[in-house]
Amino acid sequence: MRNTSAYERLVDRFSRLATIGECASMLGWDAAAMMPEGGGAARGDQLAVLAGLAHAQLTATETANELAAAEAEGDPWKEANLSLMRQAYVRATALPADLVEAQARANSACEKVWREARKASDFAMVRPHLEEVVRLVRQSADALAPALGLSPYDALMDGNQRGVRAADVAPVFAAYEAFLAKALPEAEERQARNPAPVRPSGPFPVEAQEALCRRLSERLGLDFAHARLDRSAHPFSGGTPTDVRITTRYVESDFTQAVLAVVHETGHALYERGLPAAYARQPVGEAAGMGIHESQSLIVEMQACRSDAFLSWLGPELHATFGGDPAPYEPANLGRLWRRVERSFIRVDADEMTYPAHVILRFRLEQALVSGDLAVADLPGAWNDGLKALLGIVPPDDARGCLQDIHWYDGAFGYFPSYTLGAMAAAQLMKAARLAVPTLDTALARGDLSPLLGWLRANVHGQGSRLGFNDLLRAATGKSLDPVDFQGHLTARYLS
Amino acid sequence: MRNTSAYERLVDRFSRLATIGECASMLGWDAAAMMPEGGGAARGDQLAVLAGLAHAQLTATETANELAAAEAEGDPWKEANLSLMRQAYVRATALPADLVEAQARANSACEKVWREARKASDFAMVRPHLEEVVRLVRQSADALAPALGLSPYDALMDGNQRGVRAADVAPVFAAYEAFLAKALPEAEERQARNPAPVRPSGPFPVEAQEALCRRLSERLGLDFAHARLDRSAHPFSGGTPTDVRITTRYVESDFTQAVLAVVHETGHALYERGLPAAYARQPVGEAAGMGIHESQSLIVEMQACRSDAFLSWLGPELHATFGGDPAPYEPANLGRLWRRVERSFIRVDADEMTYPAHVILRFRLEQALVSGDLAVADLPGAWNDGLKALLGIVPPDDARGCLQDIHWYDGAFGYFPSYTLGAMAAAQLMKAARLAVPTLDTALARGDLSPLLGWLRANVHGQGSRLGFNDLLRAATGKSLDPVDFQGHLTARYLS
Repeated sequence: MRNTSAYERLVDRFSRLATIGECASMLGWDAAAMMPEGGGAARGDQLAVLAGLAHAQLTATETANELAAAEAEGDPWKEANLSLMRQAYVRATALPADLVEAQARANSACEKVWREARKASDFAMVRPHLEEVVRLVRQSADALAPALGLSPYDALMDGNQRGVRAADVAPVFAAYEAFLAKALPEAEERQARNPAPVRPSGPFPVEAQEALCRRLSERLGLDFAHARLDRSAHPFSGGTPTDVRITTRYVESDFTQAVLAVVHETGHALYERGLPAAYARQPVGEAAGMGIHESQSLIVEMQACRSDAFLSWLGPELHATFGGDPAPYEPANLGRLWRRVERSFIRVDADEMTYPAHVILRFRLEQALVSGDLAVADLPGAWNDGLKALLGIVPPDDARGCLQDIHWYDGAFGYFPSYTLGAMAAAQLMKAARLAVPTLDTALARGDLSPLLGWLRANVHGQGSRLGFNDLLRAATGKSLDPVDFQGHLTARYLS
Repeated sequence: MRNTSAYERLVDRFSRLATIGECASMLGWDAAAMMPEGGGAARGDQLAVLAGLAHAQLTATETANELAAAEAEGDPWKEANLSLMRQAYVRATALPADLVEAQARANSACEKVWREARKASDFAMVRPHLEEVVRLVRQSADALAPALGLSPYDALMDGNQRGVRAADVAPVFAAYEAFLAKALPEAEERQARNPAPVRPSGPFPVEAQEALCRRLSERLGLDFAHARLDRSAHPFSGGTPTDVRITTRYVESDFTQAVLAVVHETGHALYERGLPAAYARQPVGEAAGMGIHESQSLIVEMQACRSDAFLSWLGPELHATFGGDPAPYEPANLGRLWRRVERSFIRVDADEMTYPAHVILRFRLEQALVSGDLAVADLPGAWNDGLKALLGIVPPDDARGCLQDIHWYDGAFGYFPSYTLGAMAAAQLMKAARLAVPTLDTALARGDLSPLLGWLRANVHGQGSRLGFNDLLRAATGKSLDPVDFQGHLTARYLS
């Protein structure tokens, strides 16, 4: 053993852990963007083995000794790093290695069957698999809860967005439900009085869309010496901070999907690229959680790129790319097209006003699944009742109901709230950024994100995980999460 | 600990090890086919960490105990598996973990500089890096030698092709050198008397080439539910047995490179796909070494696909794909075009008769580098002298000399002989297959590889690593490596 301090040994250990995570991340990207179908089973095993190795690294007895020996020396980054290391260690040691590997395998198996079940809209097909996944999730939550001093559901949510509790989220979501009950009918009414938006008419050659998406992503600030844009069945971002991978899908008849997905994923990728390099592969150098991550995709997509200012630049760019009738590319028309509220069944297609309703539904249902108040067998009915209460509509089948999202079938519980926490944080950060950087909107009107990006690099990206969700918001905006900013954004965009 | 036998625990451990290897393999493919340049440093770290983890798994004290406790029970597969496990353990414990990681990092750093040095044809640029790589290789060989009871160089070669020694290879290569001295001038003379081959004239659209390559690979037996064909700067095969990845490169002016590379890599891929699934992720279920691997690419490329029979099917196929003047696609013309001997500088472009000369040169030089008889600084001169002696030509610069191949710069020593061992084994296996399967050539004339593939599945692919190089050849062909079959093949093709 070299003569290093306990802290230095911890830094080495966590760097190794993060590197294992990078391997898993890249293999996950490959599975979604590249892998032939026949490689699926082996890939599941590969990810399970990596998860097991990471877990063993983290739970080694040396980790506890090093954590005990490492003393904080007043450097807030180092202190935060140590505290995150301890949290990771506590989470990991609370879970037996067998359970970690069993979850990886069960999730992988369930996800595979889910793909078929969704195609066939046949919940019964995947039900036993989901039951097993939920059984293991509950086992895992029950093991984490006492170790973390949290309720089982909070223990899961804390793993996705540190420091956020169901008791904080529930009132914010209840307030939104009340806001929505008034705002949605009003927005629909106003919308009905406006001219109907005109769709640009295609076909839009896939190659041209792809070139446009890449150009746009670069324009927003992504450096393709450290990034790739590929195709996959569902858009996502993955990879590692020095090698980010974003994907999208293209349909010839409509470029909207591809362009908006790329803009969204570029927001995620810019965050990863902006994490503090000095703390690469350290807990404190990672993204500050899934809610903050989503805030960074949404601040780019929803706040910046769907703003009047940006659309006034983007409209002519799109027309120059695809040609044809210029009218549909008028910024005002694009605004009506891309900022349209509509009660619908599918979360990923939802507009920004109804989206939180989809999340609120899942937040309530997953709490009930984890507590045992809701049996997996009763999920389809509970889903349909819940959506009816929130949006007044009932899915015609389970494919458009409880089978639509991969998350639960892949073992992710306590994750869904992050989407709406992110949307709210994005509005709050945008408001603060506009105050701090007066040129922000005039730059957007030139297709230039750099003033916004500069502010985000300083106040969000460069902060890594040093601060928890609300501490980060307080440092950046002067207050912890305040849903009023999001409601203000929606009111300005849809009700005035 | 579950109540399992020592052998079962070893099977678990080696399965885990193989799965780590699969992760590394897939990340290696990605680095060559997909990764943006900026990801290189992190990728090097990722591979180093995986190598370190694999090494730790293998050298754990439990491995020794389990090996000691596991008793052979008369099953030859299990016995062979145990013996391979022990060899892997002995190799790994002979190497300190620090050295394993240091090699991974040094190789990765050297390889990166080599790419620039080759471009600039500047050996001095990469020399210090190669010196470090060689220093670590020698350290590694010196540590392996006593543990394996082999010379340092043999210890390295044994890692690439088990059971083959420099003392076996040297006389085979010396005999070939003597054969070549007579055969090459004769072949050149005969060639000069034949009509000059006519090149099909392009351009050959890259998309059409790619579709053709995929069709051809499928026709040869590759199942694309378990395979991908992508593009990379240099053709290679990678991935895992249930998810094989082959790549090639396309130039618009000539489809030859792409087609022949894909045929070659398909041979590698078919071998991986044919390994015994019952022993997946076990040492005995792996490929039998790099020499045998190369024999499987060359039996497909050189023996089968460049045969008169196959060309009589392929010529019309190519013409149907690319159109134009049919004359260059006449099988006899394709034969003259693709079976042409020529003294040249670049190994990967060499014909099958002069190729062994390139390997013999490297075999002699790398022995001298490992023993210390040759200093890295003297490599360029020794290279040029050696090529002059073997082929009578001198490279005009180091890019076309000692900088041309990645292998040494990536830390691979003791690997080069595998190419020629593979070429010789391919000729020997083809001769045996023709005797055993009389319909083999009539099937090739229909573009049908399946009779050959069936024989290879039974006699080579399905054998995994159960047998060493010469034992496998004895079981399949009745004799250990006999260079006479390769010379016979060359004589039939080029001298009669």
